[in-house]
Amino acid sequence: MKTTPRSPLRDIVARNMRRLRAERGWSQEYLANECGLNRTYLSAVERSEQNISIDNLYRVAQGFGVESWTLLKAE
Amino acid sequence: MKTTPRSPLRDIVARNMRRLRAERGWSQEYLANECGLNRTYLSAVERSEQNISIDNLYRVAQGFGVESWTLLKAE
Repeated sequence: MKTTPRSPLRDIVARNMRRLRAERGWSQEYLANECGLNRTYLSAVERSEQNISIDNLYRVAQGFGVESWTLLKAE
Repeated sequence: MKTTPRSPLRDIVARNMRRLRAERGWSQEYLANECGLNRTYLSAVERSEQNISIDNLYRVAQGFGVESWTLLKAE
């Protein structure tokens, strides 16, 4: 099994998270509290540095109150 | 940071993968070759036992020739 290369989904998720936070006027700290995830971790996801799993993606979606699949869709 | 609980996305992804394989008449082995991922790993994803990351989700979607976000959508 080869190492999985960075996928373009990282940038799509990062962009959607930044857009949703901006629309709501939320800081990363506020989002972190809504999701129950670490702020440093979420910051890395927003810089496309973290390869987020679907369990954490679900928490982010729940925090924003959106459907998970919308986070993977390029606007 | 709490441990992330199993999300309902695992079952959605698992179901979509099984459906897409069935529609194409593909074995797990065939899918594994198309994705460049390990068959044992994909089998665990299809049993909702693996918390797949977006980089691997992308490879699965590429293997099937579908958009990644469709794998997170309940039919």
